[in-house]
Amino acid sequence: MALLTVGSVAFDAIETPFGKTDKIIGGAGTYIALSASYFTADQKIVSVVGEDFPKETLDDLTNRGISIEGIQIKKGEKTFFWSGKYHNDMNSRDTLVTELNVLEKFDPVIPERYQGVDFLMLGNLAPAVQRQVIERLKTRPKLIAMDTMNFWMDIAWNDLMETIKLVDVLIINDEEARQMSKEYSLVKAAKKIMSFGPKYLIIKKGEHGALLFGPNKVFFAPALPLEEVFDPTGAGDTFAGGFIGFLARTGDVSFENMKRAVIAGSAMASFCVEKFGTERLMNLHEEEITNRIMDFRSLVDYQMEKVI
Amino acid sequence: MALLTVGSVAFDAIETPFGKTDKIIGGAGTYIALSASYFTADQKIVSVVGEDFPKETLDDLTNRGISIEGIQIKKGEKTFFWSGKYHNDMNSRDTLVTELNVLEKFDPVIPERYQGVDFLMLGNLAPAVQRQVIERLKTRPKLIAMDTMNFWMDIAWNDLMETIKLVDVLIINDEEARQMSKEYSLVKAAKKIMSFGPKYLIIKKGEHGALLFGPNKVFFAPALPLEEVFDPTGAGDTFAGGFIGFLARTGDVSFENMKRAVIAGSAMASFCVEKFGTERLMNLHEEEITNRIMDFRSLVDYQMEKVI
Repeated sequence: MALLTVGSVAFDAIETPFGKTDKIIGGAGTYIALSASYFTADQKIVSVVGEDFPKETLDDLTNRGISIEGIQIKKGEKTFFWSGKYHNDMNSRDTLVTELNVLEKFDPVIPERYQGVDFLMLGNLAPAVQRQVIERLKTRPKLIAMDTMNFWMDIAWNDLMETIKLVDVLIINDEEARQMSKEYSLVKAAKKIMSFGPKYLIIKKGEHGALLFGPNKVFFAPALPLEEVFDPTGAGDTFAGGFIGFLARTGDVSFENMKRAVIAGSAMASFCVEKFGTERLMNLHEEEITNRIMDFRSLVDYQMEKVI
Repeated sequence: MALLTVGSVAFDAIETPFGKTDKIIGGAGTYIALSASYFTADQKIVSVVGEDFPKETLDDLTNRGISIEGIQIKKGEKTFFWSGKYHNDMNSRDTLVTELNVLEKFDPVIPERYQGVDFLMLGNLAPAVQRQVIERLKTRPKLIAMDTMNFWMDIAWNDLMETIKLVDVLIINDEEARQMSKEYSLVKAAKKIMSFGPKYLIIKKGEHGALLFGPNKVFFAPALPLEEVFDPTGAGDTFAGGFIGFLARTGDVSFENMKRAVIAGSAMASFCVEKFGTERLMNLHEEEITNRIMDFRSLVDYQMEKVI
């Protein structure tokens, strides 16, 4: 089924304990779209870049079956740029540079041919922009998922609350869930956040896996224990892309199928962190993905009939 | 099969954001023994207490089928006492008081009737004392598991290295695994620690679950997402007790069965944190335990035949 991905297509410069990059391709929209492209062949993206953005990268997206008609290219303007440096434990990072550039006045235009999509994934953007996208779709998609971040909780709380009312699945990390709910327990946090609107909530816990909450239901997907996390940038977006891509592929939005989608997202994220930026997501083979998903299965698999 | 538990039987005073206790019953040996008692009826304990230790508590252990012949009662001496205060996030705590008392010169005596046990669980104690216990058993148990802590890594490294060479399963937390291995990645840490001797390693990650490593194998058990963690004291020992108790019950030390044992341990730990101290472990019903173990199953359960 058709998937519309909305999110930044951007430049990043990253420093980790393993090395340092120049400007490389990044952006939530890029990670989501690349990740989802392994699951669905019918994907469209809405974004904005500057004149400085390489045509080859847009071709890469096209080659992965993603329609780029919705990417506006702003003449004389520059692409969004973020630069960050990870600490030794890889669990925290400092932002060194944020240049909003074209994102500052981003007015998401939905091409006519994009109307009627079945799934909508809203990558992290100003909540007002995310809401505009929903409002500009003439028919409501079967399922809307969105990501956000603590920054918007700080400066655009009311906007954020208005927007999350409109979505089915909210995807955030544990720190964001705690900030949004003002609850430390993630179980309590989930209840409170779902009372704000979303029927489903995914709390990403990085190396500690992810929790999927639904009406009176909870599912836990582990993260694969990895020898090395090379670069965590984009892992959360890659997770979201695998999740929504799996749902779009299967067309099934039941809680049972969302569990599988969370595993698919976790598997994609585990690839993402193996190399800098989007490198690992450019040339994955179906077999690698299937094997990785099976690794998740065996990680938590046990037989237990009678207990005591 | 017969299980020998060695560990402190002690007094604790605990402060959490939910309240404060006077001196209550604590100690690694107590938690391990109580937890294991739900799985095996043939358990013996070796420990030491002072004259101030309540006879009723020893009776409680006896009533749970635990042989207390190996608990030395030192006339005119005082029982080990620990007092701690948890921070608001419950993930860290400050030790307020540690009075070693009878533990200072603990010389573990193995009653003749304890010889020939099949399973040995060494709770956290000085590594030299743990080694003495192993040396004083005339026949080597089928499986030896031990816990330790960073304190012994700091002050008794060589002793610790000598002792862990002799055990089959080492059970420590993530912070301790990182300190012991000097590796941040838990996968790398596990490889290194297993190269020190133990064939199996369990890394407890508190609210993030537990990892079981074996020769080229890894298994992950989640922690149950809880609304409230009332008091984490003893959760790690309770985990160890459920783990070794399950193995002793089944007599099967295969990796497949250790997975089940890790789930059993995780279930027991999830009860422990619901009340102060050992309270929750005093009167559990088999049905509660079975149901809790099934909750773990459904938490990670999903069907995924064909992927992409």
